[in-house]
Amino acid sequence: VTSADSLLCAPHALTMDGSGVGYLADAALAIDRGRILAVGRRPEIAQEYSAERTIDRGHHLMLPGFVDAHMHTGMCLLRGLAQDTHHWMMHGVGPFSAHLSPQAMDAGTRLAVLEAVRAGTTTFGDFGWSMDSVCAFLAQVGVRGAVAVTIREAEQRIYAPGELYTFDRALGRRQFDANLQLFDRWHGAANARLRVFFGPQGADFLSRELLLEVHQAARARATRMHMHVAQGDRETAQIEQRYGCRSIACLDQVGVLDANLLAVHLTEASADEARLVAERGASMALCSGSIGIIDGIVPPAAAFQSAGGRVALGSDQAPGNNNHNMFNEMKLTALFNKVHAGDPEVMPAWRVLRMATIEGAAALGWADEIGSLTAGKRADVSLIDLRRPTLAPVHLRPMRNLVPNLVYAARGDEVDTVLVDGQIVVDKGRLVTMAEDQIFSEAQRYAAAIGPAAEAEFFRIDNANARAMRDGNL
Amino acid sequence: VTSADSLLCAPHALTMDGSGVGYLADAALAIDRGRILAVGRRPEIAQEYSAERTIDRGHHLMLPGFVDAHMHTGMCLLRGLAQDTHHWMMHGVGPFSAHLSPQAMDAGTRLAVLEAVRAGTTTFGDFGWSMDSVCAFLAQVGVRGAVAVTIREAEQRIYAPGELYTFDRALGRRQFDANLQLFDRWHGAANARLRVFFGPQGADFLSRELLLEVHQAARARATRMHMHVAQGDRETAQIEQRYGCRSIACLDQVGVLDANLLAVHLTEASADEARLVAERGASMALCSGSIGIIDGIVPPAAAFQSAGGRVALGSDQAPGNNNHNMFNEMKLTALFNKVHAGDPEVMPAWRVLRMATIEGAAALGWADEIGSLTAGKRADVSLIDLRRPTLAPVHLRPMRNLVPNLVYAARGDEVDTVLVDGQIVVDKGRLVTMAEDQIFSEAQRYAAAIGPAAEAEFFRIDNANARAMRDGNL
Repeated sequence: VTSADSLLCAPHALTMDGSGVGYLADAALAIDRGRILAVGRRPEIAQEYSAERTIDRGHHLMLPGFVDAHMHTGMCLLRGLAQDTHHWMMHGVGPFSAHLSPQAMDAGTRLAVLEAVRAGTTTFGDFGWSMDSVCAFLAQVGVRGAVAVTIREAEQRIYAPGELYTFDRALGRRQFDANLQLFDRWHGAANARLRVFFGPQGADFLSRELLLEVHQAARARATRMHMHVAQGDRETAQIEQRYGCRSIACLDQVGVLDANLLAVHLTEASADEARLVAERGASMALCSGSIGIIDGIVPPAAAFQSAGGRVALGSDQAPGNNNHNMFNEMKLTALFNKVHAGDPEVMPAWRVLRMATIEGAAALGWADEIGSLTAGKRADVSLIDLRRPTLAPVHLRPMRNLVPNLVYAARGDEVDTVLVDGQIVVDKGRLVTMAEDQIFSEAQRYAAAIGPAAEAEFFRIDNANARAMRDGNL
Repeated sequence: VTSADSLLCAPHALTMDGSGVGYLADAALAIDRGRILAVGRRPEIAQEYSAERTIDRGHHLMLPGFVDAHMHTGMCLLRGLAQDTHHWMMHGVGPFSAHLSPQAMDAGTRLAVLEAVRAGTTTFGDFGWSMDSVCAFLAQVGVRGAVAVTIREAEQRIYAPGELYTFDRALGRRQFDANLQLFDRWHGAANARLRVFFGPQGADFLSRELLLEVHQAARARATRMHMHVAQGDRETAQIEQRYGCRSIACLDQVGVLDANLLAVHLTEASADEARLVAERGASMALCSGSIGIIDGIVPPAAAFQSAGGRVALGSDQAPGNNNHNMFNEMKLTALFNKVHAGDPEVMPAWRVLRMATIEGAAALGWADEIGSLTAGKRADVSLIDLRRPTLAPVHLRPMRNLVPNLVYAARGDEVDTVLVDGQIVVDKGRLVTMAEDQIFSEAQRYAAAIGPAAEAEFFRIDNANARAMRDGNL
């Protein structure tokens, strides 16, 4: 008999091992010092391992924690302020994001992490400006993160459609330095739960010279570059004006499309361009909800996968997508791709569940440690209550409906327990490592200052929401 | 001072009065004998009305109960069994629905109603075969319903693609009789919370003669006809083979496209056909989730509205859409239409919230009684907890983010209290008029018999799910 810290038992598990979801009935996990010692049928595991603690859930489903590969948690206080309008970045969120203080970003991060972890997300691919605070907070909450500083040289202001960005070399240098310092301070910290990536904002936002420098810095440190690629017609127009080519061709010329790249969005990429990025070995982060709402576009993830590329899912940010919930991303990814292709067999539920777990982990270069319930990996696990209206009844034969129900019905509130590194982070649906009430009050307090500061610009730009407010429709 | 049964108070209300959402701050509702006596600012209402009971929610949003205009609650036990595969009706759900006993349908109805009412649905547009039980259950739970019996002459069996249906006149006659009896027994019952519509399944499923008879019966009783219209290529093929015209042209010829018709789906309708149906005065029920999953299609609701037609939302059924949740329908309606049009300004949040409330009520011919918080209407009200990660923070100026957050972030579990006819049906997110545990156990018990009975046919048809099960991917 081997001793373990904990045994985790449930009538159903999706290990995500193998080519599908790796279903296991009457399942048990033996966990020791944060790692999975063994996965198997309960009688065998119980015989082989003795544990101090047994977490036994009688009507639950066990599965790996979700990987949310692309997030801007610092924007969470702007939830609901920029949908339903054209020119999202400049005319939608622009008037508000100009007034996000570092404290407001931090309060937003706390709210976003609360929302996401309660819905089963255990790995956070965060991207933004106040990243020291983000790392400290992720460490404190007890979750996992791959964190990057946004690096840009383009000056922060609202540009008119078509206007070429003006560059500030010193700004880019400062942000690159911040990313380097973040790497030194946090990469490998918190029991190796934190990794630091490098975050050039996108081909349009910085010079080729700085982009290459960032690329080399990431390679020299054996870490990844996390970058928006072909994220909008705005980007295409900037790059064409500056270099006379489209984004992906330009990036390929410079030589940054490689296995170290997590390429986010590919909103404006053609299927051929998406396949080129995949063939170069890069991974893709697909933000279905965000790009659907902001642009009305379904990015070419299916083409990317058909060329052998790995696709992770990302919830992006609250003023666009409006939520940080991988159940939402899985559902929208399956549905948008069906609607886009006019074919209900495209992106089946089991495939998108892989994108939210093992394929997402692989896209971050982390599949050796997370993404499946496999002996030797870290114990990042969710337990989902099947005695909820959305997940009942359970069918096992001739077809198991567990995965379609997770993808097409579950909302996120069915997540009962979340463990990261074998430690309980969420219990009975509540975050146990932080005071939830304080997160809400701080979010509301810092949010209160943003709207009034943005008011004049909001009505000057007069977007569709400003008109709806004026007409009394909103 | 006027006396009332109850006062309902919350810091925010969306009355849905006027052209938009009718926002009201510091709101109160005076309710007496199931009706709204007055809506207004709390200080004035409190001064004018004295009530035995005050329901005071400090961080909540008040809005009308949702209208789910098209449902097959009786199919709920088949949740998760028929997505991700072609020929949904025959090859997806067909093997399972053949083994749904009336008891299994009733257990499904109870589960579906539990799910929906906890997510704020107060009016159920149900359509199926075991409708006496449905009416009794809706009356007992205390919610509102517009209920129809499915009337078809086509024999119930699995047809090969393209095979012409065989008709059984006696079957059609029995179902029409059942609908007539249901009308006599339940129309206007349960304090007028129940209405009975007539439910021909679709132009392809019954003869013109019976369709006309049903149409006249509905008109003679001043009630509506609720019918699937142009719901799939299957229907188009049947109608073209039989009559040499497309569904909507055929129905127009026969004369059943009129103000008494609730036309469901319009999946295969062109924009011109949709406009024709709207111009004839009919209403539309749009089931975004269901048609997106089953067919990969976005029905022409925008064209229907542009011709002045009213569009209600419907959650359809669990083995397709997979859930009965109007938050899901609102989000998917907004997002699918943006993605379909490639335009983020299409179907803004405030517009789809109207479809789930006042426009849905109008589509059912019930807008004089429900769909908005208006003096004189029935008190069907939801109170939504804003102190949830999905709905925080609240911005009021210069833009209110309440409606975008309801549509793009809320999941349904934020619904705290639901009243129908002034009576509390849901409290703290739980159904108080029925035993929830019993609903779950019954659902599981009746579900257990369905799969084994369907097994041989499921693997004989060998759809995409059968292959995924065989390959160990599901």
